[in-house]
Amino acid sequence: MENFSFYNPTKIEFGKDKEKNIGKYISQNGIKKVLLVYGSKRIINDGLFDIVVNSLKENNIEFISFGGVISNPILGTVYEAIKIAKDEKVEGILSVGGGSVLDSSKTIAVGTLYDGDVWEFFGRKKDIKKALPIFDIITLAATGSEMNGYAVVTNEKTKQKQSIWSTCIYPKISIINPELQKSVSKDYLVYSATDIIAHCIEGYFTAKEHPKYMSRVVESIIKTVIETTEILLSNPDDYSARGEFAWAATNALNGTTTVGISNYSFPNHLIEHSLSALYNVPHGAGLSVVIPAWAKWYYKENEVQFVRFAKEIFGESSAIRGIEALENWFNKIGTPTKLQQFNLNENNIKEIIENLSFQNDISKEDLRKILNFAF
Amino acid sequence: MENFSFYNPTKIEFGKDKEKNIGKYISQNGIKKVLLVYGSKRIINDGLFDIVVNSLKENNIEFISFGGVISNPILGTVYEAIKIAKDEKVEGILSVGGGSVLDSSKTIAVGTLYDGDVWEFFGRKKDIKKALPIFDIITLAATGSEMNGYAVVTNEKTKQKQSIWSTCIYPKISIINPELQKSVSKDYLVYSATDIIAHCIEGYFTAKEHPKYMSRVVESIIKTVIETTEILLSNPDDYSARGEFAWAATNALNGTTTVGISNYSFPNHLIEHSLSALYNVPHGAGLSVVIPAWAKWYYKENEVQFVRFAKEIFGESSAIRGIEALENWFNKIGTPTKLQQFNLNENNIKEIIENLSFQNDISKEDLRKILNFAF
Repeated sequence: MENFSFYNPTKIEFGKDKEKNIGKYISQNGIKKVLLVYGSKRIINDGLFDIVVNSLKENNIEFISFGGVISNPILGTVYEAIKIAKDEKVEGILSVGGGSVLDSSKTIAVGTLYDGDVWEFFGRKKDIKKALPIFDIITLAATGSEMNGYAVVTNEKTKQKQSIWSTCIYPKISIINPELQKSVSKDYLVYSATDIIAHCIEGYFTAKEHPKYMSRVVESIIKTVIETTEILLSNPDDYSARGEFAWAATNALNGTTTVGISNYSFPNHLIEHSLSALYNVPHGAGLSVVIPAWAKWYYKENEVQFVRFAKEIFGESSAIRGIEALENWFNKIGTPTKLQQFNLNENNIKEIIENLSFQNDISKEDLRKILNFAF
Repeated sequence: MENFSFYNPTKIEFGKDKEKNIGKYISQNGIKKVLLVYGSKRIINDGLFDIVVNSLKENNIEFISFGGVISNPILGTVYEAIKIAKDEKVEGILSVGGGSVLDSSKTIAVGTLYDGDVWEFFGRKKDIKKALPIFDIITLAATGSEMNGYAVVTNEKTKQKQSIWSTCIYPKISIINPELQKSVSKDYLVYSATDIIAHCIEGYFTAKEHPKYMSRVVESIIKTVIETTEILLSNPDDYSARGEFAWAATNALNGTTTVGISNYSFPNHLIEHSLSALYNVPHGAGLSVVIPAWAKWYYKENEVQFVRFAKEIFGESSAIRGIEALENWFNKIGTPTKLQQFNLNENNIKEIIENLSFQNDISKEDLRKILNFAF
């Protein structure tokens, strides 16, 4: 078991009606003016926007709203918001939406207190020293951003999708009300399921040493995601399933699944980030294409763990049967597993490889092999 | 899934040699003078005491040492330490030892900033408003105190073993170096195993609703404890097993196993606390007697979950066979399962019941039934 530090100071408020207290929570943290960041009209149509606004008003918290954050959020939007946040001298950021809104909000929180270009921090080239306090109501369970110090944004000019990490951008308080996630479309539900599974398996498969306890923790999440996704596809209103799905998503990337494991990497995420950056593919949809392809290329490097996965998750007896079972499950729930489903063909491979190679430690030749499995 | 709040701000520093940085960690928190609390001579003989002292000196942290905390720690010792901490105007408490030392340290941290009697807070009769910052090096994996806001102390005059809880007494930084836990005796290893399992099963069996994801989380800990205890009994130097055991212990009571479950109780702990308070039985040893007895009395209340336990943990098919398998496992590792092993007889039952009833919601008649299963 490797040495590690673990620290996660985010307070989670989980459950029904918790969003009604958002103003109180912000006020308790001594904040009087926030930038209220959101994405699509879904939160307005759902009535959530009004609930938030009422709670802010009741607690005498001034706010400026900033809507329009898109899925696979872009740097241009972040820049606009930073300008407003600086001009308006807001004291905190309130994110109401999914991972894209929250990741944009985290970047805005950093950029507002920084005189230079916030993109300088992406790719982990520079340490983040401070950020405005972040509060959020998460309306889509997938990225785990509600309980971690990561944010991922796409630089639409350079076509780079990159990340930042800092303890400064752990949200102060995250509200997870599974009921607010009911209105997520079936497409985004299955993309989310894929994303959560992806967060679990990166370390699980790539770490040279993966303590059995940690494997069990990861498998608990994957089993829960598989089980609850199937329930939610037939009954989106199942509160228990929605709740377990949401909490599993949070736990998949809050640091608890990767402590004590040896050096590991995020190859599936890195490859997928190029698909999103180049073709605006939904992150989860890209992942369900990349994962089986990458796994078929990689599994002999760590066959014992792939056999364990096959047995524990799907009751299968070999590494390759486990990978096939996962691919079949992706097909069953209706998330893509081949590049053709994005209308990409072999001509796109070169473009993907070029985009990727700037930050990847897999050789171009190996990338080609992996992408070939995705056709 | 029930509504919940989750907040755990303790920073964990896990792994080899982490104790050498204790002075730096304390200094980084702006603390210049601590009360260094410990228990037996084990930490002096192990050389740990010298390492700690050197690290404190290197970082210019003044300290007063206070040794002699005993297993099942008593209030008298805490009072003594509080007087010293007040007189010496220490700014923080450094606990070096197991759960007893840490729970005493937490109580000292509260008492030092309180003008009245710290016992007023026990039994949760009064809210704790403040405490000195707490740092610890945990030398025995069992209580989980290194990552929670609980402390349990025995009032030796009234023979009451009671607890406090507050966010104020989460340790700031806890150091868990599995190597420091190698010198724990085999007896205390198996008592610890029992304690960890007890922390897991209280909620698992008594909650009316226990989401499957949470059941899986709990089962991951129990499986790990069973597996690693057996490894450590034959090879105390197995670092991986020691590490997984230690981290499982921390996770069993850091709040992650009980979120989202419906009202639950700690009947096994409450009954055991009387055994410890009256007869100075080691906590884990008392638990391995109480758990099978309580389970035999209780299981029909929640048979589905007991069947799940039997199947997942021991591959058994019925509730009662699962309970028997657990009792057999306790016997196998050498922790007591009957009251006779503490030289108690049926005459003691009345005494135990009288001690218990002050805080228990199980009737005296039912307590008698449970205790009869323990003979």
